[in-house]
Amino acid sequence: MPLYALTLEYHGGGFVGWQRQENGLSVQQVIEAAAARLNGGTPPTAIAAGRTDAGVHAEGQVVQLALEREIDPARLREALDFHTRPHPVAVRRAALAPPGWHARFSARHRAYRYRILNRRARPALEEGLVWHVKAPLDAAAMHAAAQGLLGKHDFSAYRAAACQAASALRTLDRLVVARQSEEVVITAEARSFLHHQVRNLVGTLLEVGQGRRGIDWPRRVLESRDRTQAGMTAPAAGLCFTGVRYDEPLDWR
Amino acid sequence: MPLYALTLEYHGGGFVGWQRQENGLSVQQVIEAAAARLNGGTPPTAIAAGRTDAGVHAEGQVVQLALEREIDPARLREALDFHTRPHPVAVRRAALAPPGWHARFSARHRAYRYRILNRRARPALEEGLVWHVKAPLDAAAMHAAAQGLLGKHDFSAYRAAACQAASALRTLDRLVVARQSEEVVITAEARSFLHHQVRNLVGTLLEVGQGRRGIDWPRRVLESRDRTQAGMTAPAAGLCFTGVRYDEPLDWR
Repeated sequence: MPLYALTLEYHGGGFVGWQRQENGLSVQQVIEAAAARLNGGTPPTAIAAGRTDAGVHAEGQVVQLALEREIDPARLREALDFHTRPHPVAVRRAALAPPGWHARFSARHRAYRYRILNRRARPALEEGLVWHVKAPLDAAAMHAAAQGLLGKHDFSAYRAAACQAASALRTLDRLVVARQSEEVVITAEARSFLHHQVRNLVGTLLEVGQGRRGIDWPRRVLESRDRTQAGMTAPAAGLCFTGVRYDEPLDWR
Repeated sequence: MPLYALTLEYHGGGFVGWQRQENGLSVQQVIEAAAARLNGGTPPTAIAAGRTDAGVHAEGQVVQLALEREIDPARLREALDFHTRPHPVAVRRAALAPPGWHARFSARHRAYRYRILNRRARPALEEGLVWHVKAPLDAAAMHAAAQGLLGKHDFSAYRAAACQAASALRTLDRLVVARQSEEVVITAEARSFLHHQVRNLVGTLLEVGQGRRGIDWPRRVLESRDRTQAGMTAPAAGLCFTGVRYDEPLDWR
């Protein structure tokens, strides 16, 4: 059965997350239902590069899908982008996947963006896409603190209690905090992340930005390997899964 | 009675427009109801720099409001930003207005931004904030065509049939079309605009971007002074009122 790769954009607000669950609609379900219409009615199993949580958005989620027969990737993209309506799940690109490729296990690099709206007034246009923090944040201090977390570490202090990964060892390649007008934007890049890792990093850096903690505190939290030492888990709405990289070249259409 | 200036951000999607109407909720009504709570229960009349249409957004709408007693502008901003909830109307700034100032008649310069999402896949994250146009647009050609419309002209060809302005003479100071990754963004600046002027300009430039019309066509439409010559009125959702300038200095809080 031919295997396809898809790049998805979705608004996580109305979903229980990527993964199929009993208690509500998932992005996986929307994609599988759309793909069933091109697969003789049988929903194929969709596997994602990252299993985003409830409320988390994506601009560059990558998903794999095995179909019963071959279909032109451009036609697949158009048909799925149509059949996912009216749900906020858009199909940006599609490709025939090379042999042995796997959306999750072949991923070499994942990128997330976290948006904090840092102003007094509440969000009107960006409601649901940002975390609203009223008190002014020192983005330069947050960035300086973030640099102490780069590299290969045991990230136990920044993982969710429910995290199922066998090891908490991860290599954080990039963690940039930058002010963009009224927003403070955090970009995180690694081969893979632990459950809630980005949101826990953001919640911890926030305390540095508020001046409640020093620049070396997030590093000390890391070294404690103790989740209770870190800051709060930042809300899901500010987080967006922006992209995945693979070694295999994909002929995107 | 002390007069206040406010800068508002709002999502136009759920409103009948700025102006109070019988057939649905207006932004004016939301602001006046919020202000009534600081005004002994009496809703003051709010006057806006620009009466945005149904579905049109704002980042920098300026509004005036006379209150029965003086109130610290920072407190006014916080209280109104609170009392407008849960509507998507945020109060970004407030100032005590100088004598003789008028939100609409003192405005010297208004700016709008129009966003076209120019890609195959439909919008998921930006749904309701962009006009989705699938076929690739030539933004450079649109920009070149736009430059032929700058200056003082009779813009009858680009005004709505319902436009109530006594004269169609307007001076267009700036009309920039630029590609920003998957978007084509149009920025329009003038002292004032006719009803639907920006949306009619965008609908007309679109035909140039699609290659259906030449670069000098929008100028010929202008010279015809005939509305039936121009392109379609671009949808409201892509338009955002971004700002107003006044000669009077305002001490924003």
